[in-house]
Amino acid sequence: MRLSEMKVKEFADELASSSPAPGGGSVAALSASLGAALVAMVSALTVGKEKHKDNWEIMEKTGKEATELKKRLLELMEADTEAFNTFMAALKMPKETEDEKKRRKEAIQEATKGAIDVPLKTLRACRDVAALAGTACEKGNPNAVSDAGTAAIMAQAAGKAAAYNVKINLMGLKDEAYGAQVREEMKDLIEDIKSRVAGVENAIDKTLG
Amino acid sequence: MRLSEMKVKEFADELASSSPAPGGGSVAALSASLGAALVAMVSALTVGKEKHKDNWEIMEKTGKEATELKKRLLELMEADTEAFNTFMAALKMPKETEDEKKRRKEAIQEATKGAIDVPLKTLRACRDVAALAGTACEKGNPNAVSDAGTAAIMAQAAGKAAAYNVKINLMGLKDEAYGAQVREEMKDLIEDIKSRVAGVENAIDKTLG
Repeated sequence: MRLSEMKVKEFADELASSSPAPGGGSVAALSASLGAALVAMVSALTVGKEKHKDNWEIMEKTGKEATELKKRLLELMEADTEAFNTFMAALKMPKETEDEKKRRKEAIQEATKGAIDVPLKTLRACRDVAALAGTACEKGNPNAVSDAGTAAIMAQAAGKAAAYNVKINLMGLKDEAYGAQVREEMKDLIEDIKSRVAGVENAIDKTLG
Repeated sequence: MRLSEMKVKEFADELASSSPAPGGGSVAALSASLGAALVAMVSALTVGKEKHKDNWEIMEKTGKEATELKKRLLELMEADTEAFNTFMAALKMPKETEDEKKRRKEAIQEATKGAIDVPLKTLRACRDVAALAGTACEKGNPNAVSDAGTAAIMAQAAGKAAAYNVKINLMGLKDEAYGAQVREEMKDLIEDIKSRVAGVENAIDKTLG
């Protein structure tokens, strides 16, 4: 069953079970998706309100992009669990003959790359959600400023969680050059998110005390 | 329809809609519930594994508490949306006569207290999830360390988001003494979570690089 088709309560129960997937990678993608959904809500609470007419255009664009990201991140939630299951299947491949051993090793490396790439995509999307949350905080309906702030915080937390999931899979990757490149990109993404979200947090602290 | 009975995708769509509830307060409670669910998973991946026998007892206790918190936080997710709807209903009360005005004002203050108390309860539960995630990181199966880390990060983000939702409702509260008391408690809770999660993040950075 697709995770997004589960009831919220069922998803939480499935997560808590002794099966290692879904795990942190899917939670990261889901949390970022909920952040994107909150940005879309702030947009919907802004566009059409006469008082905020100057911000309709930017908030309409922000809402559309957030809606796309919400959808994309729900797909990454599924993909993360699938990537883990592919990895587990590779681990279970036969390893009697030299040929089998070689094929298994290759399949494990292939699956490891998949299990790295999915949370890396999630992390990139988290950067985009953080940017949109910044716009929503600045240009959105001030009555929903706590929602824009929640979106920003969710994007940052999801980004950190996605990075953990990249890193734990990097430990099994033989391709060191690719690993170094991924670590470099992650560092930049995490820094970018950090500075954006710090800006949102400061602005909100000034408003809400 | 109860939020926990919605499909994950439906919940994200409902969140993104122009209705202000569910909003950030329900997202905070849900994210913390998912963090608690991850702690329960780490417990289930530890207890019964011969290699981790020394930690069975503590991880069994941790898992039970996490399972309780997961359930309680899903209830707070519902309660947050209900508290907002109660507040909206109070706002819509008639205000023609002096008597109606007085009753409406009282109902708004009552509903405001409710809208403060629910995310405050969520914040308290986030502190408990952060503490359990710390134990899961230290005593849980190291293969699931990224899941324990994700749980800690989710608890912190959810706690911050819950605090935003308390604060935005404090703005409408007339009872200043109660407001000051709530702000004091929140400050302590946020500090407590911060130091616990910083400990988890440092430990994980040492393991995962």
